[in-house]
Amino acid sequence: MGGTFQNAVLSAKGRRTEEPPIGWLMNLALSRPGLISLAAGFTDSATLPAAETRTIAERILNRPRSARAALQYGSTFGLDELREITARRIYELDRQAVAAAEEASPGSGAVLPAKEAYAPKRVLITNGSQQLLYLATEALCDPGDIALLEDPTYFVFLGIAQSFGLRCRGVATGPQGVEPEALEAALDRIERAGELDRVKLLYLVSYYQNPTGRSASWEAKRRVAEVLARFERKLGRPICVLEDAAYREMGFAPGGAPSMLCAPGGPERTVYSGTYSKPFATGLRIGFGLLPPGLFETAGRLKNNHDFGTANFQQHILAEALRSGVYDAHLEVLRRRYARKARWMARAIAANFPPEAEWSPPSGGMYFWIRWPRRMRVGPGSRLFREALASDVLYVPGRFCYAKDETRKIPDREMRLSFGNATRREIEEGTARLAAAARKVLARGGYGKS
Amino acid sequence: MGGTFQNAVLSAKGRRTEEPPIGWLMNLALSRPGLISLAAGFTDSATLPAAETRTIAERILNRPRSARAALQYGSTFGLDELREITARRIYELDRQAVAAAEEASPGSGAVLPAKEAYAPKRVLITNGSQQLLYLATEALCDPGDIALLEDPTYFVFLGIAQSFGLRCRGVATGPQGVEPEALEAALDRIERAGELDRVKLLYLVSYYQNPTGRSASWEAKRRVAEVLARFERKLGRPICVLEDAAYREMGFAPGGAPSMLCAPGGPERTVYSGTYSKPFATGLRIGFGLLPPGLFETAGRLKNNHDFGTANFQQHILAEALRSGVYDAHLEVLRRRYARKARWMARAIAANFPPEAEWSPPSGGMYFWIRWPRRMRVGPGSRLFREALASDVLYVPGRFCYAKDETRKIPDREMRLSFGNATRREIEEGTARLAAAARKVLARGGYGKS
Repeated sequence: MGGTFQNAVLSAKGRRTEEPPIGWLMNLALSRPGLISLAAGFTDSATLPAAETRTIAERILNRPRSARAALQYGSTFGLDELREITARRIYELDRQAVAAAEEASPGSGAVLPAKEAYAPKRVLITNGSQQLLYLATEALCDPGDIALLEDPTYFVFLGIAQSFGLRCRGVATGPQGVEPEALEAALDRIERAGELDRVKLLYLVSYYQNPTGRSASWEAKRRVAEVLARFERKLGRPICVLEDAAYREMGFAPGGAPSMLCAPGGPERTVYSGTYSKPFATGLRIGFGLLPPGLFETAGRLKNNHDFGTANFQQHILAEALRSGVYDAHLEVLRRRYARKARWMARAIAANFPPEAEWSPPSGGMYFWIRWPRRMRVGPGSRLFREALASDVLYVPGRFCYAKDETRKIPDREMRLSFGNATRREIEEGTARLAAAARKVLARGGYGKS
Repeated sequence: MGGTFQNAVLSAKGRRTEEPPIGWLMNLALSRPGLISLAAGFTDSATLPAAETRTIAERILNRPRSARAALQYGSTFGLDELREITARRIYELDRQAVAAAEEASPGSGAVLPAKEAYAPKRVLITNGSQQLLYLATEALCDPGDIALLEDPTYFVFLGIAQSFGLRCRGVATGPQGVEPEALEAALDRIERAGELDRVKLLYLVSYYQNPTGRSASWEAKRRVAEVLARFERKLGRPICVLEDAAYREMGFAPGGAPSMLCAPGGPERTVYSGTYSKPFATGLRIGFGLLPPGLFETAGRLKNNHDFGTANFQQHILAEALRSGVYDAHLEVLRRRYARKARWMARAIAANFPPEAEWSPPSGGMYFWIRWPRRMRVGPGSRLFREALASDVLYVPGRFCYAKDETRKIPDREMRLSFGNATRREIEEGTARLAAAARKVLARGGYGKS
């Protein structure tokens, strides 16, 4: 007996599942404490709601009745009150967004669906929105199924897709988010290859996207829905839109497009996922999904097998924060804070970066996306990466945000910078160091391998 | 377009995964508040550590440094301090158990493995031990693989097995837990059928088992390891023992057998799972696993895709409870409390149940297992179940604790009673009502269908 769990004993999925591609980046940051990390997507530590959480925890634990409720098992789908509040919040966001879309452009096509589409019984509370993405993928996808992903996209979802053995197809994005023409072209190609029935989902990070900071315009979303509807008619079933709205509430100013629920056929095809972790406290991992009924049932059964319910205590804390207004007050603090940090970073980039860098300041979320000239390389083997590391600054090479898709090349001249947990000094100093490294590499002309 | 997520769009797993078989039982309990539920495995609400958790939460959130650490993202595998404490606790439990086994019977064969087997880097912190069971199964099993399960076993694991499309084989248990002869016979049969290579795991709830309350003796465990080793030599790889030690710390008196890690080959084949939820607070869902290195790596990658780490705040609370001694002090309270509740239930059963009922009082955990005469039926369609329901008392029909296995019949004359969250009055009244219902059914002689 070999004594270890060789491949012979693992499942196909176990054998297939790879190391997270940016695990080494995280380890690098941890192993060099002097490093300025503009790579991590951590939230701002200074504004974490310590006092608020303490007060809420006390309030819950001081009363025997609420203490017992919070410290006992809950139910698989989540705390009913939290499901109700969540359903109401999504409805309210969409109601306002539809009104704004119609006011800006009458006949926008945005229609608030019947209230049933936002029923609390469609809400599943999960361990961060990550678990919701996992459960939805598990409910929908077999190995070899096709997932359509934005180019670039949230890299942790790429880990899910890889583990499930999905074939990924990248869909180009632009300043207005996902490009409907690119989606249509991708689906046409898939159809010509006779594989339309393998298309299970389109994954969209539609608000202040990780990694680009861009939001999908309503116009783009509406046309995406039209494209999908065209192919759904051929298939006789929905193509799921997994709409990841993790950053929706983290715009620097109010506003934002309606969700994909507000497009024709939206409630039948949209799995809407969101989170209370990033806007409140990432140490409390509470995410949620709003799912079409048939899919809710399946995802709920899977959730029951995964863990029969997210920790009740956290859910009670979040429900109380939402009910009492503490959550919304904190959200305001966070928005102002992130807007200020984004301004610091924008100013630092404008002041230091060479003119060859293309970028634009985000209007929400916590990321900047930088694109360098054609011949520049920024991957882990590149001169720039090494120069940056030598001056103790870290970024996420953009290539890690692209799915494996042999039908197109992965660009290696983009990078993600995050100001999430960086201090003002780190933002300014890190940006300046990175700019100096880039100037050095640009001056030499040879950009090295990726 | 049909508008709903029919089977056509779901994954094979999504289509396969069934409603949890006792979901209706839970709903029944919720829908009839007057009902005395001796069915639910909830823990004792009155002893939930509200004051302790409040103090700890305050301590963590009052200091900016620890507050930020607890409310920020953690790492995928868990809080390092909690992993260290957990590794040490398991080691210490086994060290004491091996010493006791050797003292009781020199040459017992129990050997404490090298400390490396209990290394913190093998500990994965999960959302309750349920998630650990899920991750281990996901890492190991493909549809059609064979899992060996105790007859009877923990029914939520049956949901996992069903969802993964495993073929289950039941292994008889007795007062000493799993019966090594039955295991050997099952493996012999599987080998003769040419399917030995499909055997991936043996799932054992080895301490105060849910549902029977029985513990596996060291002698049984040692012989189980010998049987497995015999077949492992033929396979050239380990057969994983998924040892669910959820109730290990919940014995009414100290003691208990060494874990499967202490048998020859133990550290190579054993996934040891445990939990801090049941002994402390089920509203804080913190479980853990100690895994062989190759399997740890795979389960860790899967965990990263599931949720990239259990909520940090809960982990900090548990780590502080463990570090400060609050956890152990609470455990003592709980043990005394459960011992007392078990005595109440034992007295009520002894005083009220007809002599036809076979049972014995547990020495830990929170369950009684009752076996009725051969012709009695206790399933949801039985007279007894209906009579019990008519007198507002609920139990878990034992049949739900047996895996589907066509090679043997599932008995329908056993039931699980839990005193976990029942009050003294509920224990006494519920037991009396159930006894009256049983006497009525026994007197009539016809026991109805299952």
